[in-house]
Amino acid sequence: MTIVPGFTGSLLDRADAARHDTALVAAMRADPQALLLCLDDLLPFLTDSGTLGWRSVPHDPHEVELAFLGQIAGRPRFVALTPGVSALRRSPELFAVITALPPAEAGTYAAARSLVDWHARHGFCPNCGSATGVFRAGWGRLCPACGAEHFPRVDPVVIMLAQHGHGEQARVLIGRQPGFPAGRYSALAGFLEPGESIEEAVARELHEEAGIRVHSVRYMASQPWPFPSQLMIACVALTDDDSLVIDHSELEEAKWVTRDEVAAALAGDPRAPFLPPPPYAIAHTLFGRWLAER
Amino acid sequence: MTIVPGFTGSLLDRADAARHDTALVAAMRADPQALLLCLDDLLPFLTDSGTLGWRSVPHDPHEVELAFLGQIAGRPRFVALTPGVSALRRSPELFAVITALPPAEAGTYAAARSLVDWHARHGFCPNCGSATGVFRAGWGRLCPACGAEHFPRVDPVVIMLAQHGHGEQARVLIGRQPGFPAGRYSALAGFLEPGESIEEAVARELHEEAGIRVHSVRYMASQPWPFPSQLMIACVALTDDDSLVIDHSELEEAKWVTRDEVAAALAGDPRAPFLPPPPYAIAHTLFGRWLAER
Repeated sequence: MTIVPGFTGSLLDRADAARHDTALVAAMRADPQALLLCLDDLLPFLTDSGTLGWRSVPHDPHEVELAFLGQIAGRPRFVALTPGVSALRRSPELFAVITALPPAEAGTYAAARSLVDWHARHGFCPNCGSATGVFRAGWGRLCPACGAEHFPRVDPVVIMLAQHGHGEQARVLIGRQPGFPAGRYSALAGFLEPGESIEEAVARELHEEAGIRVHSVRYMASQPWPFPSQLMIACVALTDDDSLVIDHSELEEAKWVTRDEVAAALAGDPRAPFLPPPPYAIAHTLFGRWLAER
Repeated sequence: MTIVPGFTGSLLDRADAARHDTALVAAMRADPQALLLCLDDLLPFLTDSGTLGWRSVPHDPHEVELAFLGQIAGRPRFVALTPGVSALRRSPELFAVITALPPAEAGTYAAARSLVDWHARHGFCPNCGSATGVFRAGWGRLCPACGAEHFPRVDPVVIMLAQHGHGEQARVLIGRQPGFPAGRYSALAGFLEPGESIEEAVARELHEEAGIRVHSVRYMASQPWPFPSQLMIACVALTDDDSLVIDHSELEEAKWVTRDEVAAALAGDPRAPFLPPPPYAIAHTLFGRWLAER
């Protein structure tokens, strides 16, 4: 049972202040100790010891545009801002690699991947349409025409269990989207919108997707999700009425499951009524922490 | 003492599913019961009863581009996507109006304001630079050239109290930015970055701005902040060492204050060692909820 959220615990010291110091970043790039994250399109390489692969930084500063990720173990870390990477978004191979990575290594990858993907899809100024350039050591883009500064997006997503009943009678609502692998169910989720609190987004999504009204929304955990760049915010909310009205444009099916059924699913019991989300997904953490409150 | 976060509790039913139904949105716009939010640039109007001002919707669908906000009290609600509004960002007059609005009314305003402001600054496709058009009833922009879909940004911000000591000996860290009104202090805050959890962003920001290391990050509350479109995520974190190393590019000053001092500040006691943030700011809620744990 994974209680530490996936993609968290990165050893990266982002050294944010250094991003403003062009000379310092250039010196770190020239440092023979500096390392570049190995990526093939957006796919990471695993070393024999199961960690992320890094290589030395190219000498010619014009060869490839780099972003300064920060430092790990005192060594400057960079990633190449390769254009045209956004074609590869997700693949079975990618998720096999992520499954094999420790959460902390996956967290470093998440930061790099979200940043590279954002640059690849944000070469132009949304304010005036001009081509923009990289600034802040890769953590922003500047428009030379209108002067607008643009920073990488992080889209907050709420993901939640509605709970009906208490104690050993408690059940939570799980659902499956049409594209899920056979048998897989997860917590319901949706993007938080402008003008909403976390608690309001949780209540709205549960009402929209499953027709239920909730109260007492309780924060449980968070994680980054780099496909392309979400902040997953996991919550539990209580409902007094378990009747469902499913929005079938969002969900193929939704159902209530007991604590024992969730425990069986997380334990990989073949008699469990559903297959759980993978350990690196916050929904897995959410199920685990909810069970741990027993 | 405000325990309900500002900008929350809006009565708006966003009716998200309707956004996909162009004919339904057109019918709601033509509904004589439909209402348009009164805005002067981005400034709301207050009615004599202290609520938001609304007026009937213009008949000519080409007169002005509208976004469908949702429904309140069964009546469709719209806001005009006026170009060029982003010049007025904040003003003393604006904050006087917000102070006078109940949080639920401010929440409806927040959704509308963030949406209008986003359209005004996102007329072009960041992927290819082409001019984009409104779609999804005002909740997105579509690029006719490359087909990219763009949705309103919400930028997560962590705002937090570091706590040193426990019980009656507990003190929390407050700071002031150079632009604050005289005497005002607040909780420290910063944008969450790609590849971070909430807990990691809290720890990073406190270390960057004040040089302290924290653990046991605990979520407290959230609110939308429509200047232009943040999700404020308020937390408390514990530290075992109260020595400070202030980053003076971020903070003018930071200091530790006791529970009694925070209570005095929230109560408006003239002997309090600082002036608190306004009630509609989540930092005010955070101070209040932290005190309530006493």
